[in-house]
Amino acid sequence: MNTTTISWKGYLIDLDGTLYHGSRMIPEADTLIRELEDSGVPYLFVTNNSSRTPGEVAANLNLMGIPAKEEQICTSAVAAAEYIAGQQPRSKVAPIGESGLLEALINAGLIIDEDSPDFVVQGIDRSFTYETLTKAARWILGGARYVLTNPDLLLPSQEGLMPGAGTISAAIRAATGIEPIVIGKPSDILMKHAIDRLGLRNEEVAVIGDNMLTDISAGINAGCGTILVLTGVTTEENLPSFVSSSGVNPDVICRNLAEVRKLVLQSSI
Amino acid sequence: MNTTTISWKGYLIDLDGTLYHGSRMIPEADTLIRELEDSGVPYLFVTNNSSRTPGEVAANLNLMGIPAKEEQICTSAVAAAEYIAGQQPRSKVAPIGESGLLEALINAGLIIDEDSPDFVVQGIDRSFTYETLTKAARWILGGARYVLTNPDLLLPSQEGLMPGAGTISAAIRAATGIEPIVIGKPSDILMKHAIDRLGLRNEEVAVIGDNMLTDISAGINAGCGTILVLTGVTTEENLPSFVSSSGVNPDVICRNLAEVRKLVLQSSI
Repeated sequence: MNTTTISWKGYLIDLDGTLYHGSRMIPEADTLIRELEDSGVPYLFVTNNSSRTPGEVAANLNLMGIPAKEEQICTSAVAAAEYIAGQQPRSKVAPIGESGLLEALINAGLIIDEDSPDFVVQGIDRSFTYETLTKAARWILGGARYVLTNPDLLLPSQEGLMPGAGTISAAIRAATGIEPIVIGKPSDILMKHAIDRLGLRNEEVAVIGDNMLTDISAGINAGCGTILVLTGVTTEENLPSFVSSSGVNPDVICRNLAEVRKLVLQSSI
Repeated sequence: MNTTTISWKGYLIDLDGTLYHGSRMIPEADTLIRELEDSGVPYLFVTNNSSRTPGEVAANLNLMGIPAKEEQICTSAVAAAEYIAGQQPRSKVAPIGESGLLEALINAGLIIDEDSPDFVVQGIDRSFTYETLTKAARWILGGARYVLTNPDLLLPSQEGLMPGAGTISAAIRAATGIEPIVIGKPSDILMKHAIDRLGLRNEEVAVIGDNMLTDISAGINAGCGTILVLTGVTTEENLPSFVSSSGVNPDVICRNLAEVRKLVLQSSI
């Protein structure tokens, strides 16, 4: 950990690879969150995952012993829905995704319409078919704007690697020649949505995450502070290659969540 | 038509856009093929389509009044199967495609194996799902070589545009980071397969087609002569832009199949 004197007023915390791996909590994740809660420091959980609803994400965290409330969860699906509603309230949207996306669109007051959508919004869709691909291509070539919840290509799962929303998007982009508006990390749109919900300015907020290409890049893109924790994708060994491929450097590097706790407590004193 | 004195001994003829549009024969396609047959000039039909068997393609041509035999049809599926058998006879292959691909693989003596394939071979697959995408990614990341029958992104159909094999491939490439071996036009692999079947040298053969980016590029890549016919994708108006985007020029440009007939008869005298 660098001995930085930077002080932040709020935190945006990544989930997978930062607080847990799969269904296993990373040591001290529960303590970190309890200490944040007890000290009254504002924080939110931020995830690129668009398949689960905020309620489901919070329930999963609580199951692992990490205290979380539904209203503390920012998903790329909710940010996508609010982005679309911000562009054009009560837009007609054709969703390609799962329950988390559908719920977010309805909660944002958007109209589900597969006949003549204004927007196609796509996340991970484990029931994706050739027919869905055909419909998506025709909607977008017909003029609908294309919003992608998150650009992740592959996700870990207990059965092995699974294609993410970005992989499905590659087919839609190839068919249409149209690049989507990307909401999730490393885009700053999800981050700005979360910063707004914290009610802080971007420079008052730090992003805590394990992934240089998503968490740290998104934090820097949004003008936030960045705390890299070596609990997941990034290790001391591969850090130089991630610095080189991402072109960014975190403000602080913590080897584990114990170091994050110290940093956060120090900042909140 | 240029007044060229080039003389070719055999022809490789494209189908959709050159001899027909959908289910409608292009004028003089039937006469052209009958004259080639009567004059004893060797020719084959060459198609990027991997979904139909050669028997089905021939039946479809005959239905439109264009005489064709099964053994005169070169599909990208048959060329892909023979390419794999040439690399490693009796390889284990996992197919992602339709009946034309499956028949071609079995006819080439390859073993269908979805457990530990040596090759993944992918064409258009109108029953493609997220599960297929997941399996393809795991096979290829597990070391299977990846063969793509053809790179077409969108195909016309009576119901509107349909995603082609190249669109499905974009998702598999995104998931794996692996580029496939491409068999169909503009690759020269399908063309060399067809030239071998004609029993001629590449410079003795001319490719006849309507598409600068596939037919004419493939002909040039394979060292053949090239005859562009303005019956399909390419028109007098858009030709300069296709010359610019493809970086190639055909040897001869014919406005219609009547001009192709004159050229071919002149060559065969």
